[in-house]
Amino acid sequence: MRNLFFMLFALLDAFGLVAQNLNRVTESDVLNQRERHEIRMPHIEGIEIMRCDFHIHTVFSDGYVWPTTRVEEAWYDGLDAIAITDHVEFRPHKNYLPDSLNDVFAIAKPVADYYGILLIKGAEITRSMPPGHINAIFLKDIDALGMDDYMEAIEEAHNQGAYIFWNHPGWKVQQSVTKWWDVHDILVKNGWMQGVEVYNTNEWYPVALEWCLEKNLTYMANSDIHGTISYVFDTKKDPLRPMTLVFVKERGEQALKDALMKGNAVAFFAGKLAGPEVLLRQIFEASVVVGKRFNVIENGDVSIKISNLTDIPFVLEDEEGKNLILAPGTTVIIKVEDYHNKKSLKFKVTNLYYGMNKNLDVEMTF
Amino acid sequence: MRNLFFMLFALLDAFGLVAQNLNRVTESDVLNQRERHEIRMPHIEGIEIMRCDFHIHTVFSDGYVWPTTRVEEAWYDGLDAIAITDHVEFRPHKNYLPDSLNDVFAIAKPVADYYGILLIKGAEITRSMPPGHINAIFLKDIDALGMDDYMEAIEEAHNQGAYIFWNHPGWKVQQSVTKWWDVHDILVKNGWMQGVEVYNTNEWYPVALEWCLEKNLTYMANSDIHGTISYVFDTKKDPLRPMTLVFVKERGEQALKDALMKGNAVAFFAGKLAGPEVLLRQIFEASVVVGKRFNVIENGDVSIKISNLTDIPFVLEDEEGKNLILAPGTTVIIKVEDYHNKKSLKFKVTNLYYGMNKNLDVEMTF
Amino acid sequence: MRNLFFMLFALLDAFGLVAQNLNRVTESDVLNQRERHEIRMPHIEGIEIMRCDFHIHTVFSDGYVWPTTRVEEAWYDGLDAIAITDHVEFRPHKNYLPDSLNDVFAIAKPVADYYGILLIKGAEITRSMPPGHINAIFLKDIDALGMDDYMEAIEEAHNQGAYIFWNHPGWKVQQSVTKWWDVHDILVKNGWMQGVEVYNTNEWYPVALEWCLEKNLTYMANSDIHGTISYVFDTKKDPLRPMTLVFVKERGEQALKDALMKGNAVAFFAGKLAGPEVLLRQIFEASVVVGKRFNVIENGDVSIKISNLTDIPFVLEDEEGKNLILAPGTTVIIKVEDYHNKKSLKFKVTNLYYGMNKNLDVEMTF
Amino acid sequence: MRNLFFMLFALLDAFGLVAQNLNRVTESDVLNQRERHEIRMPHIEGIEIMRCDFHIHTVFSDGYVWPTTRVEEAWYDGLDAIAITDHVEFRPHKNYLPDSLNDVFAIAKPVADYYGILLIKGAEITRSMPPGHINAIFLKDIDALGMDDYMEAIEEAHNQGAYIFWNHPGWKVQQSVTKWWDVHDILVKNGWMQGVEVYNTNEWYPVALEWCLEKNLTYMANSDIHGTISYVFDTKKDPLRPMTLVFVKERGEQALKDALMKGNAVAFFAGKLAGPEVLLRQIFEASVVVGKRFNVIENGDVSIKISNLTDIPFVLEDEEGKNLILAPGTTVIIKVEDYHNKKSLKFKVTNLYYGMNKNLDVEMTF
Repeated sequence: MRNLFFMLFALLDAFGLVAQNLNRVTESDVLNQRERHEIRMPHIEGIEIMRCDFHIHTVFSDGYVWPTTRVEEAWYDGLDAIAITDHVEFRPHKNYLPDSLNDVFAIAKPVADYYGILLIKGAEITRSMPPGHINAIFLKDIDALGMDDYMEAIEEAHNQGAYIFWNHPGWKVQQSVTKWWDVHDILVKNGWMQGVEVYNTNEWYPVALEWCLEKNLTYMANSDIHGTISYVFDTKKDPLRPMTLVFVKERGEQALKDALMKGNAVAFFAGKLAGPEVLLRQIFEASVVVGKRFNVIENGDVSIKISNLTDIPFVLEDEEGKNLILAPGTTVIIKVEDYHNKKSLKFKVTNLYYGMNKNLDVEMTF
Repeated sequence: MRNLFFMLFALLDAFGLVAQNLNRVTESDVLNQRERHEIRMPHIEGIEIMRCDFHIHTVFSDGYVWPTTRVEEAWYDGLDAIAITDHVEFRPHKNYLPDSLNDVFAIAKPVADYYGILLIKGAEITRSMPPGHINAIFLKDIDALGMDDYMEAIEEAHNQGAYIFWNHPGWKVQQSVTKWWDVHDILVKNGWMQGVEVYNTNEWYPVALEWCLEKNLTYMANSDIHGTISYVFDTKKDPLRPMTLVFVKERGEQALKDALMKGNAVAFFAGKLAGPEVLLRQIFEASVVVGKRFNVIENGDVSIKISNLTDIPFVLEDEEGKNLILAPGTTVIIKVEDYHNKKSLKFKVTNLYYGMNKNLDVEMTF
Repeated sequence: MRNLFFMLFALLDAFGLVAQNLNRVTESDVLNQRERHEIRMPHIEGIEIMRCDFHIHTVFSDGYVWPTTRVEEAWYDGLDAIAITDHVEFRPHKNYLPDSLNDVFAIAKPVADYYGILLIKGAEITRSMPPGHINAIFLKDIDALGMDDYMEAIEEAHNQGAYIFWNHPGWKVQQSVTKWWDVHDILVKNGWMQGVEVYNTNEWYPVALEWCLEKNLTYMANSDIHGTISYVFDTKKDPLRPMTLVFVKERGEQALKDALMKGNAVAFFAGKLAGPEVLLRQIFEASVVVGKRFNVIENGDVSIKISNLTDIPFVLEDEEGKNLILAPGTTVIIKVEDYHNKKSLKFKVTNLYYGMNKNLDVEMTF
Repeated sequence: MRNLFFMLFALLDAFGLVAQNLNRVTESDVLNQRERHEIRMPHIEGIEIMRCDFHIHTVFSDGYVWPTTRVEEAWYDGLDAIAITDHVEFRPHKNYLPDSLNDVFAIAKPVADYYGILLIKGAEITRSMPPGHINAIFLKDIDALGMDDYMEAIEEAHNQGAYIFWNHPGWKVQQSVTKWWDVHDILVKNGWMQGVEVYNTNEWYPVALEWCLEKNLTYMANSDIHGTISYVFDTKKDPLRPMTLVFVKERGEQALKDALMKGNAVAFFAGKLAGPEVLLRQIFEASVVVGKRFNVIENGDVSIKISNLTDIPFVLEDEEGKNLILAPGTTVIIKVEDYHNKKSLKFKVTNLYYGMNKNLDVEMTF
């Protein structure tokens, strides 16, 4: 008898019926999932593409979230590395928060280690134009950048071994026309500035692409996030938050820094890529594949599958100016007439830029 | 001539072509929209339903966002009033942030005024079980609650005129079974506790519904949010974040407090409502309408439209146990056989609770 | 003993565990919901707005779904009335399907009655330009329109009491420029054509708005759907499928026809409205409300809530050219400086058109 | 002068402004995208996994769409092969459509060739229980199956070289308990039945998994779609429409048939897999990868990344009964305590079944 009773209640309990009816019901399905959504990148032989955001703020300057939250956001959003870059000089919450910006890194580091996110120590040197706002990352001591003379601050960052870049050069608050100043020539000449944001938040600056070409600067796109990332970018849909794609042989802080110094990076923003032509071509060729099987329709016409294996969209324009959109992870079909006498298809990739009006040209041979 | 040139460039400029090609392109569509999504409530004659969350944390205790962000989240999520209730005693960031919790309210208030969100001053008195965690809202001076004896702290809150409630009574960290303790009887007897969370984060406690009935406590559901709201609740889909729906004659802080003291509130969580039977009936009858036009099918059968005008889902079970789901803002069709001899339809509303296993029964007459 | 066993299995059965483990598991949540998503329209005193699509095809001409499916699509998509308008002359499936197009109406009618969708009998008279494709709805006998001379066919439709309109006047297959022909003047003069599609599928024709003004034609937008509606329009997101909003005193077939004949209709497409200025103003004023409570910020500035109660988006442009988007069912906040000396706000509603470049101007007084 | 005017209008035209203002505006973004969403499958050396649906209806029996639409749906939904299987005997539209079901295949084949979808000729032999509904695919002449005696019909299908399976064995309309009948033994003994649907539409039959084990039948899941696929399954979200995953060396009709005959298939439905244990293990091991880098936290604890490369979800239960969900294309982090003394992790995969209550057990070694 007792066994049967036991068996009865054990069964009910096993099916959670006891708990359900009396004490506690956990609605696991009402919470957002806590996993990381991987951003599919092309597989390029011998290359790792690191997905990075190098311009991020927290409550310690004029942001609104705690440093550890920036690491969690990066994890959910599929990033590999971030730099938190609070303003050295602009600290609206300073009545509540301490002076040292080195604390920011110390607070976020253990969480970054847990998630395997590479956390870079950085800061934003904040001045009117020129030179505007300058980010320095891979710093040793942020508090040492507090001097009045911005040249001294930038030199100090350089002496700490920083990679240095110009933020939102065309920010309308600072200049209505996206203009390059003499001081930027000096910074480049001194080796005190190696990159520039061609995209920031939701704005981009086509002229800045020309600067990258002429002055050999690294193309960058960053979020410059101050509030909650998902209230600015919908991190579950396209376009993704802005990011800088850095090409390294092997993942690691030194490799990341070397690649940025060498210009081995592509800005990924608003469904567009901007970077060196050679890198754009590597990305395109490893992302887009023409289907093996051609389906013969009639009299030498065939339909051909073109697939995009990545989360980078590609917008192709054919020689008649017709558009072909390769959305992330999708396949489209095109009809090729007189297949036997046609050996290739030529396209301009209108969302891939290496210069102001310079798009990547591609050819698909078969 | 000059006029024509002028006209030409004026035109180009008007269409944004100058800007586009040279300086700056603003991708307005990449940002999430910044508007408030209204949560549709039923229109009940002479009643305003306030959508509230009375359990929220910030960086000042163990949360991860700045106080003003909580107001913005409330705005986007369609709430009318919130209480920020940081822990008086548990302050993991205290090396970085000041002692006074009154600052939290001072920081958030101007932003709340801008958005028209009613901000209530509150705090969480944090103890092991019993009595567990106790929220006090409508406080004057949070810092005055810092005494060691929790009874003294609760009395102080009461003396400040606070509305006081028991948080997550069945939180498994504190007790495996959702148990009521003698001390809670004392709190109720003293008039030092008027409500209880029947739902917190993603957990609810059916037994607590019985306490509300027996001890005349106010039914509440709150988010107890610590991180970014949208990383816990997907604020653009159902179910919405947990909230307490408070019934007032006219919106305002005093009216809100009086209604809570009187128990004129319904917990809204995980697609369910829990509250006094009379309020559940008011909500149902003002939310669900039977379509005017009946469509005759044949031999006395008709099809009838039933519409849900609100963002509250209703799950109906008919007398044969068949389910009928009325999703937010939708209409369903049902077939009524032998319409002339049938004068009404009876349903149990299985997602509306006034007690542990007590669902609202409704009848639709026509 | 036997009782206990019985009790045990009765219990298991009650909780569906027997069924679950042995026979059958129904995954109710894997299916799309079958309910109707209501499209929120403004409440205008004494007016009912009928949501209609008057240009739809089935397998009986060159479409791909069965007539009853068109009724179900209309139900899910929140429409009130549809006309199925298969081509009289173009019947690619005629080897498989019968000659009479009157069958189409007969097949769909019982399902329309069940759902309470008003089904209008119609057809498309299909000719090259001029006059292009002409829809006739409220027909009695479609098969009687089969004559070679299109004028005779249109006259026959007129004699059957049809409301007649010109489809996709700027369809590039028929004419590269959206041109009005003499024959259309004759049709209008004879009273054989009362409306025109200013929008079809995903194309619109701003010049046609001027024709509506000059020639007193009814503004229309229709889907011209051939395949599955949800493979062309994502019926769960904005913009909704194209539709014609018809203003009637009371719902019904005769009232609908009269309203169309009188021009009491507005085309709703791609997040835009096109129709008579007076109707656009009625819609705007009943859709957009300025919040009662103004929130004083400081020195005479206030923040004001503006809400859109409907599923029609409104894009406002203020006097400085700044945009304000009122998305469906949302509220935005604007700051009004020097409130005491400002008595109203003026906007141009850039997505509401009564003519080619003629947008509705509105003023919000307070 | 004339040049300037020309230049002016050429420019305007180049930017599409002429067209925009006068004739035609194409709203390309209002239409759903027409591309195929690839379903990510694991890469198993020497194996191709074909995504198939072998139970589909059209207007020619009791379905509601034209045969070609079934091919387009398969294309969008990421399938590789389908069989259209209209009822031989049940033809509610027969007043409108011809007798021959061979037409169905003839109509759909050219569209299948264009899209590269493998189209299999099939039919449903429709009887009460026993034997219930029987699908025969890889047929030559469907019309030859019209005899009264179902045994004769099944034998004819067999003689045409068909692969034959039992549909929805537990369909409640036919039997309340999912029961196996003597006639099914005869069919198996004769080699006239090689598979069974363990899942159909939104129902599955755990007992049928045992039949697959005992009687060596092929596990299958099919949609049995009659209406529009996207009104039954939301083809843009999980779970995907039901499908049968067939393991072949090389894609092709004969290879597909052989694999089905041999039982090299797995049913994929409602976020679950059901199939032979060996195939489930191949899928799991090729889908789930443990991250290379382990992040040391402290005293021998590490955090480990586990990624799911596919669109198949995996629900793991560890030895303490805790769940770990690996959603499609996502990565989760787990903490491994005392890493140095732990060499592996053991899980039960609770959504992968090879029998009624038999889940795949897996071990992750490192």
